[in-house]
Amino acid sequence: MLTVYLAGPEVFLPDAAEIGRRKQELCVAYGFEGLYPLDNKIAPAGGARVDQAIYRANLDLIRRADIGICNLTPFRGPSADAGTVYELGLMVGLGKPVYGYTNVMDDYIARVRAGQELVADKGDWRDAAGLLVEDFGNADNLMIDCALVAHGGYAMFRTPATDLYRDLTGFEACLRRAVQSRPRVSV
Amino acid sequence: MLTVYLAGPEVFLPDAAEIGRRKQELCVAYGFEGLYPLDNKIAPAGGARVDQAIYRANLDLIRRADIGICNLTPFRGPSADAGTVYELGLMVGLGKPVYGYTNVMDDYIARVRAGQELVADKGDWRDAAGLLVEDFGNADNLMIDCALVAHGGYAMFRTPATDLYRDLTGFEACLRRAVQSRPRVSV
Repeated sequence: MLTVYLAGPEVFLPDAAEIGRRKQELCVAYGFEGLYPLDNKIAPAGGARVDQAIYRANLDLIRRADIGICNLTPFRGPSADAGTVYELGLMVGLGKPVYGYTNVMDDYIARVRAGQELVADKGDWRDAAGLLVEDFGNADNLMIDCALVAHGGYAMFRTPATDLYRDLTGFEACLRRAVQSRPRVSV
Repeated sequence: MLTVYLAGPEVFLPDAAEIGRRKQELCVAYGFEGLYPLDNKIAPAGGARVDQAIYRANLDLIRRADIGICNLTPFRGPSADAGTVYELGLMVGLGKPVYGYTNVMDDYIARVRAGQELVADKGDWRDAAGLLVEDFGNADNLMIDCALVAHGGYAMFRTPATDLYRDLTGFEACLRRAVQSRPRVSV
């Protein structure tokens, strides 16, 4: 059975374990085994740092995984969770197919604009600090969107804000796409 | 001469080319060749998307690079620029040593707290949405800090806010560390 690394900021929810269980059940329904970061019982040996133990445990899960599905819903700002984005890059570097979803439909520039006024500059838009705001109709920084186009797929869904990190419609769309793009996997 | 991929949100500055030139000059002073994303003249063939052309050009530079230095200064939120974080993960996955710097000394939870009140919950801190805020004394999400500890090094410097994306003190510290950790490179 192919394994799927389940990346996303839902690990920070109070009910993180329950979300992980639901994701793993959906994986099984599509013929995959889901590897969820919280599955690691982190108990570092005396004196070792907890954060480094978590890092190594996640790295081990990622190495074991055949593919990755990343929850790239905006997190504490207009972009996705930094830990999830790091893991996305890592999986691409390791040559694994990656699928991503976001539970917000607005594109990147719309979310930046919601927080501050943008200034027009020769056909571009700049933020209050003078920094260019990408305007390619993407959900996030172009490296993220284009990586998913090149190495797997991206699903965008509008989800009620109260369920921003719990709704699994986009996650299931990624599972369907993973099944379609790997015909050896039977549902 | 070893090549260094120069990742960071300074590509969004109005004077991005000038910053890139300064970074490349510093690279030469330390015996490296700096590969700066803007060096790519992006002119996609008829009908091709500009964002995908930029992605492929950056990917080519990253594949050519022997090591990476990432500007992880917080960007539009408490975490680093998502594009830079993606590239950091990609370089780790490709087995390249990576060095990072940030021009803000505060740790992650201090920056999240500056934007909203946090709630204590059984020894943890949660944000207004109930999501756990990591409190390991790291500069960013633990995956980023721990990756740099494991695969290169991290430099943190307090820089005047006006120079947040231009100050190269941390960048130069990364160059020094890269030289020290690769004794075959002579300054």
